[in-house]
Amino acid sequence: MFTRVKSAVASFMGGIMAVSSINNSDRSGGSDLPLKYPYMRPKFLGLSPDEIECSADHIARPILILKETRRLPWATGYAEVINAGKSALNEDQACCEVLLVKKKPIGSLTPRKTSTSRRRSSLPNSVGMGMWENDACICPQDSQEGLIFHYWALFDGHAGSGAAVMASKLLHQHIVEQLQGVLEVLSNLASLPPTVLGDEPNHQSSPCTHRTLNRAASLHGATGAPGSPCTPPTRFFVEKKIYHESLVIGALENAFKIMDAQIEREKSIYNISGGCTVLVVVFLLGKLYVGNAGDSRAIIIRNGEIIPMSTEFTPESERQRLQFLGFMQPHLLGGEFTHLEFPRRVQRKEVGKKMLYRDFTMTGWAYKTIEDEDLRFPLIYGEGKKARVMATIGVTRGLGDHDLKVHDSNIYIKPFLCCFPEVKVYNLTQYVHEADDVLVMGTDGLWDVLSNEEVAETVTSFLANCDPDDLNRYTMAAQDLVMRARGVLRNQGWRIDNDRLGSGDDISVYIIPLMFGNRQP
Amino acid sequence: MFTRVKSAVASFMGGIMAVSSINNSDRSGGSDLPLKYPYMRPKFLGLSPDEIECSADHIARPILILKETRRLPWATGYAEVINAGKSALNEDQACCEVLLVKKKPIGSLTPRKTSTSRRRSSLPNSVGMGMWENDACICPQDSQEGLIFHYWALFDGHAGSGAAVMASKLLHQHIVEQLQGVLEVLSNLASLPPTVLGDEPNHQSSPCTHRTLNRAASLHGATGAPGSPCTPPTRFFVEKKIYHESLVIGALENAFKIMDAQIEREKSIYNISGGCTVLVVVFLLGKLYVGNAGDSRAIIIRNGEIIPMSTEFTPESERQRLQFLGFMQPHLLGGEFTHLEFPRRVQRKEVGKKMLYRDFTMTGWAYKTIEDEDLRFPLIYGEGKKARVMATIGVTRGLGDHDLKVHDSNIYIKPFLCCFPEVKVYNLTQYVHEADDVLVMGTDGLWDVLSNEEVAETVTSFLANCDPDDLNRYTMAAQDLVMRARGVLRNQGWRIDNDRLGSGDDISVYIIPLMFGNRQP
Repeated sequence: MFTRVKSAVASFMGGIMAVSSINNSDRSGGSDLPLKYPYMRPKFLGLSPDEIECSADHIARPILILKETRRLPWATGYAEVINAGKSALNEDQACCEVLLVKKKPIGSLTPRKTSTSRRRSSLPNSVGMGMWENDACICPQDSQEGLIFHYWALFDGHAGSGAAVMASKLLHQHIVEQLQGVLEVLSNLASLPPTVLGDEPNHQSSPCTHRTLNRAASLHGATGAPGSPCTPPTRFFVEKKIYHESLVIGALENAFKIMDAQIEREKSIYNISGGCTVLVVVFLLGKLYVGNAGDSRAIIIRNGEIIPMSTEFTPESERQRLQFLGFMQPHLLGGEFTHLEFPRRVQRKEVGKKMLYRDFTMTGWAYKTIEDEDLRFPLIYGEGKKARVMATIGVTRGLGDHDLKVHDSNIYIKPFLCCFPEVKVYNLTQYVHEADDVLVMGTDGLWDVLSNEEVAETVTSFLANCDPDDLNRYTMAAQDLVMRARGVLRNQGWRIDNDRLGSGDDISVYIIPLMFGNRQP
Repeated sequence: MFTRVKSAVASFMGGIMAVSSINNSDRSGGSDLPLKYPYMRPKFLGLSPDEIECSADHIARPILILKETRRLPWATGYAEVINAGKSALNEDQACCEVLLVKKKPIGSLTPRKTSTSRRRSSLPNSVGMGMWENDACICPQDSQEGLIFHYWALFDGHAGSGAAVMASKLLHQHIVEQLQGVLEVLSNLASLPPTVLGDEPNHQSSPCTHRTLNRAASLHGATGAPGSPCTPPTRFFVEKKIYHESLVIGALENAFKIMDAQIEREKSIYNISGGCTVLVVVFLLGKLYVGNAGDSRAIIIRNGEIIPMSTEFTPESERQRLQFLGFMQPHLLGGEFTHLEFPRRVQRKEVGKKMLYRDFTMTGWAYKTIEDEDLRFPLIYGEGKKARVMATIGVTRGLGDHDLKVHDSNIYIKPFLCCFPEVKVYNLTQYVHEADDVLVMGTDGLWDVLSNEEVAETVTSFLANCDPDDLNRYTMAAQDLVMRARGVLRNQGWRIDNDRLGSGDDISVYIIPLMFGNRQP
């Protein structure tokens, strides 16, 4: 499939830089450190250096798809296209794996007094491409060796491709490691996860410590106090029921945190440029976990119905969190920004007049008398895709960006960014899925120009016209989706249906058929 | 209607204290200051002191309803019942008014350099009961004198009735005052609210100030920077469009803030005990604004469909906000609490073991190695109705509580509480409403025992069996709802359908028919 694209691209080759020079320009970025990983396209595309070179054509913008001989688990479809020139390289990255969480030697989970919170086990390997090379994946959910899970991920880089490439290489390994920490618990679905690991449920006889007694005694009789810790003793040990699902969510959350910390740590020895959003889907024990940190999006299309599986994190959607932080920790604003929001910049001549504003506690607007402090630049400024935190970044969750500063200042952006995903869960076993029921994952390049409804309509009608036995249909549908979001070059611009502007951004799309999830135990 | 209740109550009178002595016990609370307002029941019930005395019977728990000769706007139904003994008085309060936002003298909105952010105008009066005394209200939405709006409110007090009584007397006046500040803007629906008051839209020619230029210049060329303030000038003046609706929301939000500040201020001269949740509904210019700070709830039932119009704010629903605050400002925890959440109290012998926890960034759970610090009491502890902030309070938004401390400590709760409501908007003019389409407002006493579906089913079937011309039907439906939530005294306990436990809490319910909103311009 790529060959066809490549030949179509060939005629535009005169206009593009050699990829090697692109790489160099991206690599340097003022840093003398070596790259942690070289620039690449997703491993599963299996592109040669030559093909990678051809793909970086901002004029032809060839749509890359899986070669027919290559398959992703569940016959997942994938397609991507580079931006129209906003960055030299395609800063989106993708990764798809079937992974094994290996059992650890017996007893290794028993905590020790001196143990650190993070174990340093060797990172397990992926199960390997061979398992789904020639057909839809047929994997045991559980194996003698441990627990198998499926993993799809999209990374949308900004200000360089370093963080996105690194996360696409490593995030799944951190997820494996986090899941390994709860493997024994996840393997025992018959009882709830224990509150304390390696401990017998033997609370009733244990005496309260001195400290516990103190607080317990002082809280006894407090207005509206709940069951006080020691009195009566039966209420002290009321425990919250935590379900297995929550442990998988926690594992994903902490994997993101550890990935971000690794980027920060290794920036001192490698050149890891920029930051990236992350959208991951993990299929484990019959459930899909969709974790999102950024402005990519996942939706499920089931029998034509749209089920949103993520929400976007942007300066607008996270305004109140960011303003609250700016209010609580004003030093983070460096004396240059105000945590208040105004409909536009305040001018000096307006001091003393009443202007619309809103604070972190408000969703409505009110008038306030403008003071000198209000002349500072607003922490959140701009609307929609133009909204920025401290005039710098348009996305508020993701990995990397540790060195990102407001231009010409010493004000760091990172404290306002959050590396944690929001995780939504979809129980695949609760529904019977047909061949056209899919999960669509796309970077913002897709969703900026196509609504959920347009995507669902496009995919549904495309799949309806395919041979149901053709396992390439999901990749062809992804290609169609990317084509519709990119559009065609007309009058010096990319145009889509109804003469709207197409996306000039990098676009990456997975289409994951859900029926294969049902076929596994 | 009350008379019938009163006679039913009479036989239980031996068991209750005289209201005067109840009042005294509530009044004192260790304070020598005078009450700001005496204890009362809602003004619109028109109860005599004798009737108020009878109502405070924790054994009979008479259900109080509107007398037949009294009407609320739109023939609104209302019913209430006292708790089963958890506090001497019914700590719920209610207020319903039709209010006029008076025009101010021309020119008074012109801002002055020296103006303070809060004007000290005289507070306008309510339109007066006479308008709906004898029939459903027929009020002009707008009048020569200003703007008229409808107002329904429920206050659920705790740790005393002072804050609830005060808020029920004054909050609507603060709303009037806030709306007065934007009256001219709201009266001109033909154009969007101006960003600056009393200013001609004359931006293009204004030069940037020195400070603005500095920031603008420094941001010019920043990675991903939006339109920099001064360059190009056309982008500097891009303004966010703010709609009239947002100004009403902002007015409600700030009215709550000012009400809370007034309680704090006047606590030095009056005895204003406890705190209260607030649920208000404002009908203005064709829209219903539902503002909620606390755990009361409002739903619309339209053609049998349930439309939730509020969400509850509890230690569980606001966990991440509270933990984030505790993490950012650890001194607020007084060295006694940890911002981390655990499924139960940690015991000293568990230090060094791995226990489930979650931080403010997480919705899932993971294991961490327990350290000494984790022995502190969790900031959020308990589940469901028993969840508490710092072992003290089970609701996280509302008014008052300025003096509330953790028992036997100097740790204040108030920094963790939020006085701002969440405001949801329902455009009445977008739908045609039938006689059985209603908005139900209730304190948590109702919703603790009845689900949205049960409430909708109860109200819908009750109204279907009423004479559609009987304007008392909404009050009778409210009475029925309170009866079903309270239940009957059986085997020394209050029992409802299916032998479930009835609510032992104060219960207050409005049922507001929506068709009357459509009949007004």
